[in-house]
Amino acid sequence: MADQLAFTKGHGTENDFVLVPDLDGTHDLMPSQAALLADRRAGIGGDGVIRVVPTVAASEESVRAQASEARWFMDYRNADGSAAEMCGNGTRVFAAYLRREGLESASAFAIATRSGVKRVRFEADGLIAVNLGPWRFADPENAGDDGIDALVHVPGHDPFSAVSLDLGNPHTVVALPETVDLNSLDLTSPPVVNPVPPQGTNVEFVRPRGLGHISMRVHERGVGETRSCGTGACAAALATRLWAGAGAPDTWIVDVPGGRLRVTALPGQEVELAGPAALVADGVTNLV
Amino acid sequence: MADQLAFTKGHGTENDFVLVPDLDGTHDLMPSQAALLADRRAGIGGDGVIRVVPTVAASEESVRAQASEARWFMDYRNADGSAAEMCGNGTRVFAAYLRREGLESASAFAIATRSGVKRVRFEADGLIAVNLGPWRFADPENAGDDGIDALVHVPGHDPFSAVSLDLGNPHTVVALPETVDLNSLDLTSPPVVNPVPPQGTNVEFVRPRGLGHISMRVHERGVGETRSCGTGACAAALATRLWAGAGAPDTWIVDVPGGRLRVTALPGQEVELAGPAALVADGVTNLV
Repeated sequence: MADQLAFTKGHGTENDFVLVPDLDGTHDLMPSQAALLADRRAGIGGDGVIRVVPTVAASEESVRAQASEARWFMDYRNADGSAAEMCGNGTRVFAAYLRREGLESASAFAIATRSGVKRVRFEADGLIAVNLGPWRFADPENAGDDGIDALVHVPGHDPFSAVSLDLGNPHTVVALPETVDLNSLDLTSPPVVNPVPPQGTNVEFVRPRGLGHISMRVHERGVGETRSCGTGACAAALATRLWAGAGAPDTWIVDVPGGRLRVTALPGQEVELAGPAALVADGVTNLV
Repeated sequence: MADQLAFTKGHGTENDFVLVPDLDGTHDLMPSQAALLADRRAGIGGDGVIRVVPTVAASEESVRAQASEARWFMDYRNADGSAAEMCGNGTRVFAAYLRREGLESASAFAIATRSGVKRVRFEADGLIAVNLGPWRFADPENAGDDGIDALVHVPGHDPFSAVSLDLGNPHTVVALPETVDLNSLDLTSPPVVNPVPPQGTNVEFVRPRGLGHISMRVHERGVGETRSCGTGACAAALATRLWAGAGAPDTWIVDVPGGRLRVTALPGQEVELAGPAALVADGVTNLV
């Protein structure tokens, strides 16, 4: 029988991942191997692959430097096998795995990522919160008080006003006019953004549901529409909070197609994302 | 800990399935449970779900009647959880599972399906062949000698001539003119077929590669473009064999996006499909 690799499949608001434990840090994943694990038809299938590895065993020195704060490194790979900095929804699934396996036993701990240490916290209601760190409006000098600095074009509609944010990755948030139905928007092709963002952008379409509550859909850069995007939910909530004006709450419920997230603007221009994580299957694969 | 359900994930030319053993025939799958197993983000993910159950334990009397010929019943469910007759690529994955698990040890055996007994055969080169049974041209009275009885419309092209076949499910096969590139066809929306097939149809686009060899892409009814379709490969080969005229071979290689299949026109107006099957992962899930 061929070698076998253990895996766990999990998701956070239907952003799904293949977790691969490498608890002694001796089995790096080749990009081609990660891509095959993420392949939804020839492999197991996921939006990404997360190798679970001791921080001290990371190949990057900038990650190993986090070892005094975070025991475990979330080695995140995109579905094409390339290494990525981080994934907001992925942090919750990673944290749930560490806790279920007894690799972390506290209700709050830190994890190492390629974009630095992230702090996660298990709440009494089963939600997992993670501080995603700093955020900013992308172009405050050229935006008005409402932050509007871009136009977004979607088939069949006049251009929508939008605001650009940077959460480590780029986002463009549209507040839909009341006359436009969120569910009927055609997101099969990438929305066209002007001015054209040099690195592309993720685009969120927001429908207010009441103060502190929005629904959104998201078109992810290079991917297409997805069921959920953690940093996208944060960008959508932070933009809506700006539009809501003085007295707007710091905490927002964000309904995405894959479930419900909670976003909180923290002091010091940081943002926290909270939501569920589900570990649905465990097994072994011969895709090694 | 919640109950756990064992599963195996496999694919045939990247048409993929979640197999669920129910070896004593006591655990039927609710449609909602099958749909969740097939869910690519909240579940495990597959084009379909196959329950492995003793033929004598099938709930349908028409299946139990096959028990004298076939020990095991391929209880096939679509990704939405509904029961389906059969799946050509699925039969190979089902047969590979039975053999690996020692549930069948012969190199040829019969399996029970909702469309009757199917005979499978393991070949020395690792391919698995299955007799899919009878086929026919859908409308021979109204077609010319070339079988053409329909037009297929795809964005950006003049209508293509096509021939309609019935393999238990409906197919419409287009032989692409040499001026049209198979890979650049836009199949993101369903091709429009005239006359409109009352039950819809699967549409295959064929590029001849030489006598006895074609490439194809397929748009599956109600699904969209897929990596492979077993009955579609058979329909494409049978239509091309007609167009090739007298002296055309009975056996055709059919390259699909997910791999390579072999189709043979058998005596008695039956058709055999052969191809690989891969079992890539085994595990347990709490989605029960």
